[in-house]
Amino acid sequence: MPTTPSLQDVLDAAEELWPRTLAESWDAVGLVAGRRDAPVQKIHFAVDPVSAVVEEACGAGAGLLITHHPLLLRGVTSVEAGTFKGEAVHRLIESGCALLTAHTNGDSAVGGVNDVLAELLGLQDHEPLKPVDDGLPEEGLGRIGALPQGMPLGEFASRVFGILPSVAGGVRVAGDRDAFVQRVALCGGAGDSLLDAARHAGADVYITGDLRHHPASEARENVRGGRPYLIDVSHFASEWMWLPAAAQALDRVLSDRGYEVEVAVSGINTDPWDFVLTPG
Amino acid sequence: MPTTPSLQDVLDAAEELWPRTLAESWDAVGLVAGRRDAPVQKIHFAVDPVSAVVEEACGAGAGLLITHHPLLLRGVTSVEAGTFKGEAVHRLIESGCALLTAHTNGDSAVGGVNDVLAELLGLQDHEPLKPVDDGLPEEGLGRIGALPQGMPLGEFASRVFGILPSVAGGVRVAGDRDAFVQRVALCGGAGDSLLDAARHAGADVYITGDLRHHPASEARENVRGGRPYLIDVSHFASEWMWLPAAAQALDRVLSDRGYEVEVAVSGINTDPWDFVLTPG
Amino acid sequence: MPTTPSLQDVLDAAEELWPRTLAESWDAVGLVAGRRDAPVQKIHFAVDPVSAVVEEACGAGAGLLITHHPLLLRGVTSVEAGTFKGEAVHRLIESGCALLTAHTNGDSAVGGVNDVLAELLGLQDHEPLKPVDDGLPEEGLGRIGALPQGMPLGEFASRVFGILPSVAGGVRVAGDRDAFVQRVALCGGAGDSLLDAARHAGADVYITGDLRHHPASEARENVRGGRPYLIDVSHFASEWMWLPAAAQALDRVLSDRGYEVEVAVSGINTDPWDFVLTPG
Amino acid sequence: MPTTPSLQDVLDAAEELWPRTLAESWDAVGLVAGRRDAPVQKIHFAVDPVSAVVEEACGAGAGLLITHHPLLLRGVTSVEAGTFKGEAVHRLIESGCALLTAHTNGDSAVGGVNDVLAELLGLQDHEPLKPVDDGLPEEGLGRIGALPQGMPLGEFASRVFGILPSVAGGVRVAGDRDAFVQRVALCGGAGDSLLDAARHAGADVYITGDLRHHPASEARENVRGGRPYLIDVSHFASEWMWLPAAAQALDRVLSDRGYEVEVAVSGINTDPWDFVLTPG
Amino acid sequence: MPTTPSLQDVLDAAEELWPRTLAESWDAVGLVAGRRDAPVQKIHFAVDPVSAVVEEACGAGAGLLITHHPLLLRGVTSVEAGTFKGEAVHRLIESGCALLTAHTNGDSAVGGVNDVLAELLGLQDHEPLKPVDDGLPEEGLGRIGALPQGMPLGEFASRVFGILPSVAGGVRVAGDRDAFVQRVALCGGAGDSLLDAARHAGADVYITGDLRHHPASEARENVRGGRPYLIDVSHFASEWMWLPAAAQALDRVLSDRGYEVEVAVSGINTDPWDFVLTPG
Amino acid sequence: MPTTPSLQDVLDAAEELWPRTLAESWDAVGLVAGRRDAPVQKIHFAVDPVSAVVEEACGAGAGLLITHHPLLLRGVTSVEAGTFKGEAVHRLIESGCALLTAHTNGDSAVGGVNDVLAELLGLQDHEPLKPVDDGLPEEGLGRIGALPQGMPLGEFASRVFGILPSVAGGVRVAGDRDAFVQRVALCGGAGDSLLDAARHAGADVYITGDLRHHPASEARENVRGGRPYLIDVSHFASEWMWLPAAAQALDRVLSDRGYEVEVAVSGINTDPWDFVLTPG
Repeated sequence: MPTTPSLQDVLDAAEELWPRTLAESWDAVGLVAGRRDAPVQKIHFAVDPVSAVVEEACGAGAGLLITHHPLLLRGVTSVEAGTFKGEAVHRLIESGCALLTAHTNGDSAVGGVNDVLAELLGLQDHEPLKPVDDGLPEEGLGRIGALPQGMPLGEFASRVFGILPSVAGGVRVAGDRDAFVQRVALCGGAGDSLLDAARHAGADVYITGDLRHHPASEARENVRGGRPYLIDVSHFASEWMWLPAAAQALDRVLSDRGYEVEVAVSGINTDPWDFVLTPG
Repeated sequence: MPTTPSLQDVLDAAEELWPRTLAESWDAVGLVAGRRDAPVQKIHFAVDPVSAVVEEACGAGAGLLITHHPLLLRGVTSVEAGTFKGEAVHRLIESGCALLTAHTNGDSAVGGVNDVLAELLGLQDHEPLKPVDDGLPEEGLGRIGALPQGMPLGEFASRVFGILPSVAGGVRVAGDRDAFVQRVALCGGAGDSLLDAARHAGADVYITGDLRHHPASEARENVRGGRPYLIDVSHFASEWMWLPAAAQALDRVLSDRGYEVEVAVSGINTDPWDFVLTPG
Repeated sequence: MPTTPSLQDVLDAAEELWPRTLAESWDAVGLVAGRRDAPVQKIHFAVDPVSAVVEEACGAGAGLLITHHPLLLRGVTSVEAGTFKGEAVHRLIESGCALLTAHTNGDSAVGGVNDVLAELLGLQDHEPLKPVDDGLPEEGLGRIGALPQGMPLGEFASRVFGILPSVAGGVRVAGDRDAFVQRVALCGGAGDSLLDAARHAGADVYITGDLRHHPASEARENVRGGRPYLIDVSHFASEWMWLPAAAQALDRVLSDRGYEVEVAVSGINTDPWDFVLTPG
Repeated sequence: MPTTPSLQDVLDAAEELWPRTLAESWDAVGLVAGRRDAPVQKIHFAVDPVSAVVEEACGAGAGLLITHHPLLLRGVTSVEAGTFKGEAVHRLIESGCALLTAHTNGDSAVGGVNDVLAELLGLQDHEPLKPVDDGLPEEGLGRIGALPQGMPLGEFASRVFGILPSVAGGVRVAGDRDAFVQRVALCGGAGDSLLDAARHAGADVYITGDLRHHPASEARENVRGGRPYLIDVSHFASEWMWLPAAAQALDRVLSDRGYEVEVAVSGINTDPWDFVLTPG
Repeated sequence: MPTTPSLQDVLDAAEELWPRTLAESWDAVGLVAGRRDAPVQKIHFAVDPVSAVVEEACGAGAGLLITHHPLLLRGVTSVEAGTFKGEAVHRLIESGCALLTAHTNGDSAVGGVNDVLAELLGLQDHEPLKPVDDGLPEEGLGRIGALPQGMPLGEFASRVFGILPSVAGGVRVAGDRDAFVQRVALCGGAGDSLLDAARHAGADVYITGDLRHHPASEARENVRGGRPYLIDVSHFASEWMWLPAAAQALDRVLSDRGYEVEVAVSGINTDPWDFVLTPG
Repeated sequence: MPTTPSLQDVLDAAEELWPRTLAESWDAVGLVAGRRDAPVQKIHFAVDPVSAVVEEACGAGAGLLITHHPLLLRGVTSVEAGTFKGEAVHRLIESGCALLTAHTNGDSAVGGVNDVLAELLGLQDHEPLKPVDDGLPEEGLGRIGALPQGMPLGEFASRVFGILPSVAGGVRVAGDRDAFVQRVALCGGAGDSLLDAARHAGADVYITGDLRHHPASEARENVRGGRPYLIDVSHFASEWMWLPAAAQALDRVLSDRGYEVEVAVSGINTDPWDFVLTPG
């Protein structure tokens, strides 16, 4: 008969899926708050540990909130409740809800953010754009692979738009609507550091988020307006896609170990933009 | 009878308008290419020294291209034509067209990028968000001031949208459409470094460009969804607004000194995005 | 009729006594945990935020624990309960007890650690060994002053021993028992950085804690076995002396502002040493 | 027939016992003063190159003083006699007495400071706490091993006290007198950098010197008052133990090479503390 | 029938002779100006890209100037013509003359600056003083080898003087005219960083340029006036020797690939000194 | 009746002439070896503390050697006699001869190296090229002034050559023999850091030592072969000129204070070059 796991039991299962060794050196992943011997019946998944999400998880009686983004990426010497980060720490501890971060380890892992995006787009033979130094060849940041059938950039952008959760800002594209694309590079979240890798990998189009004027402009100039074209998506939306898969995977690992938990994915849109005005 | 100025004569006039001492310490402003004794009959203004713009200026027979963004912000040890920056250097020198950068000095100056935006929005009693260390109180990065009459955020966003040149991505807004706003902070270009300054200055809304997920999300969390609301505009569009005013001001200073030149503002949209798909 | 202050009210009173601007640049002082709008009826004072002290404060129902030493001197990216620091954060928040640090600001302030020690020893005309950069001449680290009447070093050491709370390690002395001392320098806590200042100030004897072999040996060699002699006291004991005075001062300021609180000083000895074997 | 060695001959023998490659990267070991072709008839050993020791060695007509601690750990641009270090250089050179430092190489070597302490305490199967990077497994800082028979902490502390040369401060202990200890970690001199290594190695008790409040307090909190307990000994005393063994070992190596020297160990107590007042 | 190569074809040939991987990490070698698809009929070689040399190359209609010294060793953010470096960039681009630097890769390569000097001096079995980290054992900075027959230092200096192009400052020698020398170390250009390497390699004499007072004085003191003696030659002259060999080698590689070019070596003396007054 | 001063008395007099506050921040000036209470009857002056100079001073029974160059510019952790610097320390201490360095303080002082050179050349109204930050306007590095009557560069170079002590390398000149020069900048020792200062000060010619290829070449290119011309002199010779004046000045100050000493200037040429071969 399945039993309720302790927080430590859940951490062990999470480590199997998203090993800490896959995290980038600058990152801060792992357990942020909580007692390792506390029982965990409900696990909540979200992209951002913002106040609405913390409220949602605590209100639902979750014993653990797993987010993609770290609450305390840079070290703090205070968690007093006067800042939103300190408020989150207080609310979580008061509610007995632990907080776990799976950030760049969640990006690079097999079945992580980038793998899920590649699968949803139907990419074949995809591999990391930047493999991890010590790890499997399937592990690393970004992915590159091929569509089974090429199509015009405009059509492909519509497909991307259709797959992602709807956010106000939508999807921005740099390139010719009619250009044919088949080889696709992608990086969930903010991927400007992989613009060169996508070009060198021969991508027809590169999908990522948070592209600012200068990196995008230089990338377009470097290829004289040619390939790879760019698709700028919502940082949040690109990472949200991973949550259902992550929840299911953790549930399965725990179940295999004889534990029973309830998993849930946050429905809150934490993309910061509420509405948009466009020329169309 | 008016005479044709030398490049040095034009540099002297530009220095009066956008003094180099106003540039940030990390910036690289001033003359990038050209001979100071060459006569300058036509002056071309643009935001970005990208290939289409260089082509436009050289094709028009300009003797000087003035851009907001530096071509060589980080030092280079080669200008060979195999990179787009080296290609620009070759094309400019071969065409006898000089290149001058007025970047953060063009932002901070009286009559600069931020002043022009503030005027177009009708802000009253505006002053810099971050005054320069040694200079006039009117000089510095960003501006904050008040609308003569407050209005709902949605209406104000429409006004911003209407003033800026049309680009694919339009204008993104974080906040409640119906919230009343009157006190407006702004920073042309990429202004995430002034998010705290805008809040501390008591702004109802802050307009800038290139806002990524984390700075925007943290800014929204810091104020628990309240003021200042955020309006994210095109980096390019926000800076393009300055060009006609800058061209006119330089023309006037040269004219006052007895020189005659022809000034022109580039009509090329160098915002990197070509089209957008939004939920609306 | 006196009322119960909020945590913010207490912070305001503490700021008057031990201003944050007096803290050294490397220090981390101020509020570490707690909600600023919570009412505070009981305030607990201690030197170290160790587990026994946290337990004592929470067990007594304190709303605020004020310690001299910071819990999080170096920034942390996690407060999970598996470390003693994270455990303290959890215990405090779960108990609704805030934590405030008054460290080097508590050393340098008028009426702070060093002033209390100087007064207890009866030093006259004492002043800081290292005055703060911007502040009153009475503010700074360490103190130097004169005994009303000089005495042999051995007798003076006995007086120091008699004043301090009893700890296992007692008081260690370097110098000649019969040498006459009158001019006394001191620094609560670990004061090896002020050994030179004490010598240059013409001290006959310097009292501080945590003196290791090399700093002490070099200080003795520098003066060829002469003055200043050294008295090494317990780091904890030298700082504990301040607690009753600090509690009384805060109580008085709050009372002057119309607030009523209960103050208490921890009786737990947090000097790490339990027993000692000496030749005597 | 045995002959008198040159200084270089003695350096060669010392290198065999305490190889320079065993020194830590920040250390400054080797010959500090002296002429390599000078004959050496008497060799004096001491912990600290302080003035009384230099006087003792020169007064005894030694041709070489070997100390554990470096005279010039940080580089100097002057050796004028106005500082005690410059005075030592002058006195040594004027007396024709060379100075050799065997510091962390003397700690880590087989038969070095830590080995001697481990042997005197009767530890079995002891090995380094922090093995050197390139070297034998027996070489490194600190040692950990087991007593043939466990005993209460109080009894063990008495044994430590009884073995070490008598100094004013004696021996301080953190832990329960009656707790049973068998697995012992130790580090001669100041070993706070190995507190974690001692815990991870499963020590019941860790012996070292110069433990200050914060490292000791954090180490006790980390283990919730449990094992390893701490015994803080005199930095000087813990290193002095090595001198007789070192003198004998060097004498033997020189003898094996056909040289005859006279070796002597300084009897001067260079622990800085002269007397102590304790509660007992 | 031989054809005219493009600049890229010439770069490919140069890479075979002086691979970029041989350059020191701080160096800036490779193409500095020019279009890779331009045809190159004439190639000009020189040590320094100074104005007279640029004028000579452009005046002769060269399509490529290859210099040993970099024009832009430290990165620049402007190439405006008001500096001599910017003037050179303008003159070269306006004349359609590319610029290629072969600096430390030209020193270390087989057949490079140091090899040519060693051959001209008749050194046997010579090898690098500082071999490259990853490369052939014949590649690296400096050379050391033996004269077939030794000779007095004065005679050898005359031979060095006779081989090098004549410059005003001539050749300076530190050492005894009559001392016998056979083992010779050398480094073209400024080789003070290899003074120790030459001594450790057992050289009787070390030839290099730009030796200042302190390095030369310390090198002489280190050997108590003995070997290696020093011969200080003109930085320019020592590197000019390489030009004819480099021109011939490049011509041959291009010819082997079916290309025809005209190569020329600059006759301009770019040693900065015009005349000298000596005691003789 | 005049008395023999102690070393401290001499240091006090030297401080009046060449205050330590005038030394550059990177420099290491002041007393390097010796006992401050030792009597000083003979004082020896030299440029370099090399072995021959130390031998000369000790052989002459000097109680103090004053050199321009520091023996220990970079800190050392050993003074063993196996290096020439350690040998010098041993020889000096064994002979009871102290060592004092007056380096950049000796350059910048009124009556220092640069002033002496300016006076010997007959410069009028000379002032420092780089005044000290806090000091008199007459104090600083380098000097610039005017000859009473201008003359051709060739004639002026001959005058420089005639004034300086004869060394093998002589004097090297960059510029036109017949060009008229009147405004003269100079810097004793190695003055490449003041090349720009000399140009900006409007010098016709700049005299200094140790000019290497690149600084000299760039300085000549910067002025398109025009003014300032360069005269490169022996580092040693340019500084030796100061010694007689320094000896006389110190003698006078001591005499004014009632002390009698014997002063001597070393006649050893410590320029490293023994002979030269030139085209002439």
